[in-house]
Amino acid sequence: MRAVDIILKKRDGGTLTLDEVRFFVAGVTDGTLPDYQASALLMAIVLRGMTAEETARLTDAMVHSGERVDLADIPGVKVDKHSTGGVGDKTSLILAPLAAACGVPVPMMSGRGLGHTGGTLDKLEAIPGFRVDLSLTEMKAALARVGCAMIGQTAQIAPADKKLYALRDVTGTVESIPLISASIMSKKIAEGIDGLVLDVKTGSGAFMKTEADSRRLAESLVSIGNASGVRTEAVISAMDSPLGRAVGNALEVIECLEVLKGGGPSDLIEVSVELTSRMLVLGRAAADRVDAQQRVRGAIASGAGLERFRQIVQHQGGDPHVVDDYRRLPAAPERYLVTAPATGYLARLDAELVGRASVALGAGRDRVEDVVDPAVGIVVIVKPGDPGDPGDPGDYVQAGDPILELHYRDRARLDRALPLATRSIAVSDARPAPRPLLVGEVH
Amino acid sequence: MRAVDIILKKRDGGTLTLDEVRFFVAGVTDGTLPDYQASALLMAIVLRGMTAEETARLTDAMVHSGERVDLADIPGVKVDKHSTGGVGDKTSLILAPLAAACGVPVPMMSGRGLGHTGGTLDKLEAIPGFRVDLSLTEMKAALARVGCAMIGQTAQIAPADKKLYALRDVTGTVESIPLISASIMSKKIAEGIDGLVLDVKTGSGAFMKTEADSRRLAESLVSIGNASGVRTEAVISAMDSPLGRAVGNALEVIECLEVLKGGGPSDLIEVSVELTSRMLVLGRAAADRVDAQQRVRGAIASGAGLERFRQIVQHQGGDPHVVDDYRRLPAAPERYLVTAPATGYLARLDAELVGRASVALGAGRDRVEDVVDPAVGIVVIVKPGDPGDPGDPGDYVQAGDPILELHYRDRARLDRALPLATRSIAVSDARPAPRPLLVGEVH
Repeated sequence: MRAVDIILKKRDGGTLTLDEVRFFVAGVTDGTLPDYQASALLMAIVLRGMTAEETARLTDAMVHSGERVDLADIPGVKVDKHSTGGVGDKTSLILAPLAAACGVPVPMMSGRGLGHTGGTLDKLEAIPGFRVDLSLTEMKAALARVGCAMIGQTAQIAPADKKLYALRDVTGTVESIPLISASIMSKKIAEGIDGLVLDVKTGSGAFMKTEADSRRLAESLVSIGNASGVRTEAVISAMDSPLGRAVGNALEVIECLEVLKGGGPSDLIEVSVELTSRMLVLGRAAADRVDAQQRVRGAIASGAGLERFRQIVQHQGGDPHVVDDYRRLPAAPERYLVTAPATGYLARLDAELVGRASVALGAGRDRVEDVVDPAVGIVVIVKPGDPGDPGDPGDYVQAGDPILELHYRDRARLDRALPLATRSIAVSDARPAPRPLLVGEVH
Repeated sequence: MRAVDIILKKRDGGTLTLDEVRFFVAGVTDGTLPDYQASALLMAIVLRGMTAEETARLTDAMVHSGERVDLADIPGVKVDKHSTGGVGDKTSLILAPLAAACGVPVPMMSGRGLGHTGGTLDKLEAIPGFRVDLSLTEMKAALARVGCAMIGQTAQIAPADKKLYALRDVTGTVESIPLISASIMSKKIAEGIDGLVLDVKTGSGAFMKTEADSRRLAESLVSIGNASGVRTEAVISAMDSPLGRAVGNALEVIECLEVLKGGGPSDLIEVSVELTSRMLVLGRAAADRVDAQQRVRGAIASGAGLERFRQIVQHQGGDPHVVDDYRRLPAAPERYLVTAPATGYLARLDAELVGRASVALGAGRDRVEDVVDPAVGIVVIVKPGDPGDPGDPGDYVQAGDPILELHYRDRARLDRALPLATRSIAVSDARPAPRPLLVGEVH
């Protein structure tokens, strides 16, 4: 088999066989396939596409580039969640302890933030001492002990993905539903889970800007998961504005603790409960979605979720007292308020621009090697579509009203963040039409 | 400027600016652009195409990756010919001396054979002592002395093309009219010529299999040439069967000498006279095509073309006595006849398969580093559409009649060539419809 023949086949719109896909993935993994051939094939895949079967073959080959973890000795139906990435998208820290508290083991492998979206590992590491680099043995011990492990991807998991992703990033071949699907699902399938709930984001702050593209991605992901023996379903949720009010690692941890304590913003509660409920049904810890929602809300009300969060933190070496004392989390020394440029309804608070402003402050990374500042970030004071409490004008603002509170450390970084933060805000005379948060599902 | 942004633009169907194209070509030339980015962009160009203006920009950037030769101190209108490549396609050795004999200086830079097609340099090197590696100074001296130089591409000519071609060859990005056009025309424009006649081949043995594709390529090439100040026109000629009867380097030299002596196969004469006549008109050595054809046929009849060939050989260090004594050319020790599998009309003699059989015998190269055997090759005994002389059945053959004579040195190579040679022949009950040799022109 010659690499150039595989490239020619895909270039001319052909369908690659399992052997051809394996040859490609194995060559990428062991370095025998030159990068220039891999990138030519990647571009041909971006422009010619892949059938559902081909995408499943690619996923399978990527799973087999490493180990598929065996969690058979952990009792229960193991369920994970994956989000395609958003701004203020912190549901993992809420749903993992809640699902575990309701009896579903959650072996969660997450990533770091890149670009304008945040990453679960960065958020967890805002908790002093928290270790995300557990070995597989330690992960199993954590699952057995506290019903949940929240860790980074180990080197054994789909190593082809890491190499391919690095190449895609510099060759303009990221935006491809088959390639995105294989990248996400190969890692999830290799984790050894039985069930998976996907949160496919849609909107200006999401990778997929349109609902149609998000649905296509969701369908692709669900189809691959189910074909690989992982019961998979997807929620499509809006990501036009940040989810919740906190953007930035320590700020988001606090917001998650607020939700686990029965407070927090309504949109974050809604998405978290929806995703956790689906995890309970997949994990056979609830009879149906209605039963599951009651159990999840019960685990919030009883404090069982909060208690489980404390146990997870303690088990993974973090400071469990952060749960009660937020002063133990890193905090930025300075604040800056970004205000409404006019009087009217807050029509838009662009998630991508808020995310980029937060990265500019130091909360995320533009390049893999950048160091994250856990303390900095942005608090959203007014959100579009905010109904307002009695006596509170909601999303109707006066010129000069604070909209965003920037938590910063470095003046130069603030200067870089401000134009982005300012551009994220749009005020309009007309009240924006309400848009549902949960816009679809695929199963 | 970032390479990935240029890739993304082309991936999404955008039109690259001159600066973007220059950034790409300069990066390829000086090695600052990684191959994996270059190949991703090449694949995006193959699948998204380039406008005529973009292709002209790419050509210009490739010309400027090296030197544009200045031939202003050579009197006369300098004209070259380029063929897109065929099997038995040996017209350069006929038309260069004929055009020079008719007063048109011919500074010809040619390539080597690759794949199933032959190359002019390999044919010239079948002549003992012939040097194709003249410096630019030696080339100018040859032009001044004998009105013609036939050499290889020097390192100063479009160095970007050499790197890009090597990359295209292994990344499935050869088949693209913009990339082919820029590759061909950048080298020709950099030669310093005033006029160019293109022989764009079409058919099973050509790079472009359909007349429509060949016409699109011809139009692209002619448009670039004229935009760069090189008066350019193209002939589209059939390449379903080998041109002439000889395939293989020394065998083809002999056939060219036969044409220059007033003999040779009619199809080879027809194409050679057509191309030379156009060179004479472009070179202002004839009033029009009718006048030009008379002058060219006159240069054959008078022996002026043959005499010029002898001078070129002598000037470039070759043995001029080969013109009179073919025994001075290398000859293969063994012969093998491939015969008709049935009685009927020879319906097809597939040029690509004959070319590949000849390469298998050692006359060409599958890889750039292969060594060519000048002696081996194939003589076509019967051609499809051969009208036959009085009393000669032409292309009607009896089962067992010889069709191809394989000139070989090595038995193992013969064994590799035979299946290809056998498959090249198809005999049919119906006489094949005649197909014209010259199927179109673009100017």
